[in-house]
Amino acid sequence: MSQIPIVRTVADLRAQVRAWKAKGERVALVPTMGALHDGHLSLVALARTKTDRVVASVFVNPTQFGPNEDFDAYPRGEAQDAEALASAQCDLMYAPTVAEMYPEGFATTVNVTGVSEPLDGAARPGHFAGVATVVTKLLLQSGADVAVFGEKDYQQLQVIKRVVRDLDIPVEIIGAPTSRLESGLARSSRNAYLSDAEREVGERLNLALADAVRRLQAGETVERVEATGRAALERAGFQRIDYFEVRNADDLSHPGPGPLAVPGRVLAAAVIGRTRLIDNMAV
Amino acid sequence: MSQIPIVRTVADLRAQVRAWKAKGERVALVPTMGALHDGHLSLVALARTKTDRVVASVFVNPTQFGPNEDFDAYPRGEAQDAEALASAQCDLMYAPTVAEMYPEGFATTVNVTGVSEPLDGAARPGHFAGVATVVTKLLLQSGADVAVFGEKDYQQLQVIKRVVRDLDIPVEIIGAPTSRLESGLARSSRNAYLSDAEREVGERLNLALADAVRRLQAGETVERVEATGRAALERAGFQRIDYFEVRNADDLSHPGPGPLAVPGRVLAAAVIGRTRLIDNMAV
Repeated sequence: MSQIPIVRTVADLRAQVRAWKAKGERVALVPTMGALHDGHLSLVALARTKTDRVVASVFVNPTQFGPNEDFDAYPRGEAQDAEALASAQCDLMYAPTVAEMYPEGFATTVNVTGVSEPLDGAARPGHFAGVATVVTKLLLQSGADVAVFGEKDYQQLQVIKRVVRDLDIPVEIIGAPTSRLESGLARSSRNAYLSDAEREVGERLNLALADAVRRLQAGETVERVEATGRAALERAGFQRIDYFEVRNADDLSHPGPGPLAVPGRVLAAAVIGRTRLIDNMAV
Repeated sequence: MSQIPIVRTVADLRAQVRAWKAKGERVALVPTMGALHDGHLSLVALARTKTDRVVASVFVNPTQFGPNEDFDAYPRGEAQDAEALASAQCDLMYAPTVAEMYPEGFATTVNVTGVSEPLDGAARPGHFAGVATVVTKLLLQSGADVAVFGEKDYQQLQVIKRVVRDLDIPVEIIGAPTSRLESGLARSSRNAYLSDAEREVGERLNLALADAVRRLQAGETVERVEATGRAALERAGFQRIDYFEVRNADDLSHPGPGPLAVPGRVLAAAVIGRTRLIDNMAV
């Protein structure tokens, strides 16, 4: 069984990264909340093609969960995560405690307007401020040259790109394609919550998105495509649909009700049982 | 007449800092809003004792001025600033445009709770968010190892220390003692607004603070010292007193009405004519 070094403090992380950089090596960071699946490992694999060294952080960030969300239930398993990262030839696992990330007296938040406001920003108040703050910290703690995030969390990726540009964080942000199961279901740590029956419902999410992409490409209006998508999710058995929307790919502004004239993205979030799934596709 | 190189873009700033760091040199940043006086130059002098190279930024940051404040009137004079920095043996002047700092689409704010809320935080809504955001940018743009700020803006210094700690910005923040004229008046770019008569009023601010320090050291209660200080400023002829308060030196929380039991700071802000002056002293 392969092994991976684990550090738990900013000081130890920086010491290792400094040693690599002193040798002229470039470093990538892959931020995760653990419960690693093949989607995460594909981010590590992509990072390995970009830099000499790859650090994966594993931190379930409390500040990006709402009071009624699944922070306590979120799957955790450090031993398996370490094993998975070792097998993906990741060089270092950074697993800080909550106290290391948010010591007594912590008082700073990174807020983003615009791209963070619709969709998950509306459905999960405070979520993207939590994401923007923790990612800023992870980037500055690691001093990484490159950081890789999955397009599965497409809005998160756009928020992070915005923060990095706006605060002049010296890092290159790379988005990686969503990793999917054979059914098309996007890989997610939250899929572990799904019963077999729920999983069948969940698999309809990617089909509805793919159908929307085809319709938009055929010239159908945004308004109709969104209505059709929502109806498909309702029929599929989702209990709540947070959104099924067509957006401009860059800034996630709404392109208007007519046919899509710009590079777009179809994004959806819906709930089955106790599980909230999100997914998105490029148009 | 000595000369100083001036850069106006993040790219040019980073290229110069990178060249210095490649030679193993350490770099300090002295952020200013220009209109430089001997107080600023004392920050450059302090910075020169800490690192091999000193960069001074000159940027009148619009986002830290309120809608009815003096952004347009704030004194500007780049030629004189460049000359002053050259004579202080500063190595580089960084003078970005507003468009370089806040390009189209800019959407990110760094917010601090707690230490940023009382005093100037209450008197100038949004001020410290503007300061925290621009200082975060300047620190990350420059990649400075050290940054020097004056204790004249004592609350600002505490807010910046908080942000740097909370966001893990890899820089050492150093506070420098307030530079004073012979009368005790704290050096400030805004002193240029004062008429001779107003300047005489302004000089009473530091006297009232020094008196408060003596009284606290003699065991007088915080409540009495604050009331005495406010009365002294009213008698001196200030038109508006934003605050005259005793605070805990670290987090600027209020120490309570009795005698001061912890390291304290007396802080005041008051307006004469169109000029708002601030000052503070350690207890």
